[in-house]
Amino acid sequence: MNIKGEVIYGVHPVTETLRSRKRNVLQMFIVKGRSNAHLDNIIVMAKRMNVPLLRVDVSELDRIAGRGNHQGIVITAEPLRMMGLSDAIDGLQGRKNAVWLAVDEITDPQNLGSMLRSAACFGVDTVLLPEHRTVGITPAVHKAACGAIERLTIVRLVNLNNTVRELKDHGFWVYGADMKGTPINKMKYNTPALLIIGSEGTGLREKTREHCDELVSIPQKGTIDSLNAGVAAAIVMQDMAIKARLV
Amino acid sequence: MNIKGEVIYGVHPVTETLRSRKRNVLQMFIVKGRSNAHLDNIIVMAKRMNVPLLRVDVSELDRIAGRGNHQGIVITAEPLRMMGLSDAIDGLQGRKNAVWLAVDEITDPQNLGSMLRSAACFGVDTVLLPEHRTVGITPAVHKAACGAIERLTIVRLVNLNNTVRELKDHGFWVYGADMKGTPINKMKYNTPALLIIGSEGTGLREKTREHCDELVSIPQKGTIDSLNAGVAAAIVMQDMAIKARLV
Repeated sequence: MNIKGEVIYGVHPVTETLRSRKRNVLQMFIVKGRSNAHLDNIIVMAKRMNVPLLRVDVSELDRIAGRGNHQGIVITAEPLRMMGLSDAIDGLQGRKNAVWLAVDEITDPQNLGSMLRSAACFGVDTVLLPEHRTVGITPAVHKAACGAIERLTIVRLVNLNNTVRELKDHGFWVYGADMKGTPINKMKYNTPALLIIGSEGTGLREKTREHCDELVSIPQKGTIDSLNAGVAAAIVMQDMAIKARLV
Repeated sequence: MNIKGEVIYGVHPVTETLRSRKRNVLQMFIVKGRSNAHLDNIIVMAKRMNVPLLRVDVSELDRIAGRGNHQGIVITAEPLRMMGLSDAIDGLQGRKNAVWLAVDEITDPQNLGSMLRSAACFGVDTVLLPEHRTVGITPAVHKAACGAIERLTIVRLVNLNNTVRELKDHGFWVYGADMKGTPINKMKYNTPALLIIGSEGTGLREKTREHCDELVSIPQKGTIDSLNAGVAAAIVMQDMAIKARLV
């Protein structure tokens, strides 16, 4: 079978994609012989939206989902519309307390998905993703984000440092997560703000760090322990969101 | 091949198990023909500790690791020594600012592993795990915890509510994570403290909630978004750890 469009699998990502109506859903594939409340609910939504529905064998679904954990349900949809930076800035419409997230060199789909899910929870509604050395919005990222991607504005970037300069020109304060930064409990943030999270292994790149107005850290015990990157990003985001009165 | 002992796989869990020297390592299995700095480092440690080492095919390693993401390395070890509740309480030796974690009905190994890893990072050094309806310390939990388990005291419980009563008798204050609780930014904690995290889907059980001195929540935007259970646990733990001056 020839698959066109972006593959999205799993109960939450599929439900959110249908619910948000942000993009056309081209086709739905459901595993043969399985029925449960989640799938029934999805089928009702799909029928209302006239999405063509096909029952397929689990081996076929495995293949379409690239062996991802599809939970019996896969859709194909028009690709997610990425926003340009200037459109995203225009979209602020003078909203002063915005907090945005930029992730740099995050290569693990689980971690990126986790960050996107947390971002949506904390009202961090715009996420900047560099095109190079960072995982894109793959089906696995979608699954890990639990559908949150449909509620976010995603901006793909060529060069993060140029973008940071542009955002600063538009009044943004730039914060980088870094072990040597000020502990979150001592931090005050100016807004609109951009939080930059660096790679799982080595953190922020030197050049990126230099562009930050301030570095922020999470107090931790000892030296050998370190937080998962997705957890660390969530902790800084919740601190910023609470202090910026986003939540 | 007949496998004796507890299976532990992945670079971080294996490294931490060897480094902590908390239990005897019985056997080491490394995939044939692979070599990298992590594996070399592990081999050096294993040789120093006289751990028998066997090179095996990747299919054999897959089998031993139950198809988990073993990264080319598996060990078997004596089972993790669980501590009894009264021994754990004795271990406090009057330390007033202790924060402990209890997880109830957490069934996803990724979430439990994530919570254990974060606990170790925040100095939450004792974790209570009910025997029923909660995933045990499986190899997948070990992998997700990234080796943190070797630095924690794990107490297996028959009945969480009885344990909560006993801890209260020993001066513990009991906090439950619950959407209806006081927002973390308004919370003050008394210590020693126990934080209880309930199930991924339905949160704390009614009876457990009644045993809590106070409920604590994480401010979030909207109603359909919700944080991953591991992320939510980490956010409350860091708030408690900072306020209790554990970190």
